[in-house]
Amino acid sequence: MPRFSLDSQLAASTVRLARWKLSDALLSTDATYPWLILVPRRAGVVELTDLPWADAMALTAEIRHASRALTELFAPNKINVAAIGNQVRQLHVHVVARFRDDPAWPRPIWGATPSRAYDPAELARRRKVLVRALTQD
Amino acid sequence: MPRFSLDSQLAASTVRLARWKLSDALLSTDATYPWLILVPRRAGVVELTDLPWADAMALTAEIRHASRALTELFAPNKINVAAIGNQVRQLHVHVVARFRDDPAWPRPIWGATPSRAYDPAELARRRKVLVRALTQD
Repeated sequence: MPRFSLDSQLAASTVRLARWKLSDALLSTDATYPWLILVPRRAGVVELTDLPWADAMALTAEIRHASRALTELFAPNKINVAAIGNQVRQLHVHVVARFRDDPAWPRPIWGATPSRAYDPAELARRRKVLVRALTQD
Repeated sequence: MPRFSLDSQLAASTVRLARWKLSDALLSTDATYPWLILVPRRAGVVELTDLPWADAMALTAEIRHASRALTELFAPNKINVAAIGNQVRQLHVHVVARFRDDPAWPRPIWGATPSRAYDPAELARRRKVLVRALTQD
């Protein structure tokens, strides 16, 4: 039975915010959007249908939790949720706050704009408010 | 209490395959990909978090059902699942069979390539196999 370990591309492009029941809640280090990535800690899982039903329900609850936190913190015009995985096969779900004035609107964000790095103070601040929002119930 | 009616842009770009417990299962008339769109028949719902929990669970089950049908029928390299809704706000979930040799791979499909119409016989054939796969349990 292989053990779960976070995909190296995900590890290189995110910071961890919270360890939930099923998933690690990560923040993309692309500062263009408030962009969360949920990764179920299950080895070898690629598709949503690879999860047993109990895990699928847990993931649904965690996606909703992430969506609500982004909505409360950022008041976006839309939340985008997606499990794509054509490049990184380890199952991961994007939960992204979108705004009418963001650089990709109304297109999806993937590949739309070059990644913009947070400055360190901005990342620390964002991480702090997100950790607080995501770890309270 | 407003009644549900399918968004006009969705109606114009899909055909209906099945009427499930929560959602209508639609086929995109863009023949580039085997592309299902699930639309919960709930008036005014925009975000996944607008659904009560029982509906969220039903939608999760229906997404899995759609994913499995596409996997069995088309043996894709990846299933892409997304709720974006920046342009059409009525909640709808894309479930798309992706292939390493499809024209957008590995990028997401939205806006990637111009829509290609099915020829009528091809659409009738695809609809028939999908209706059969989606309506059996």
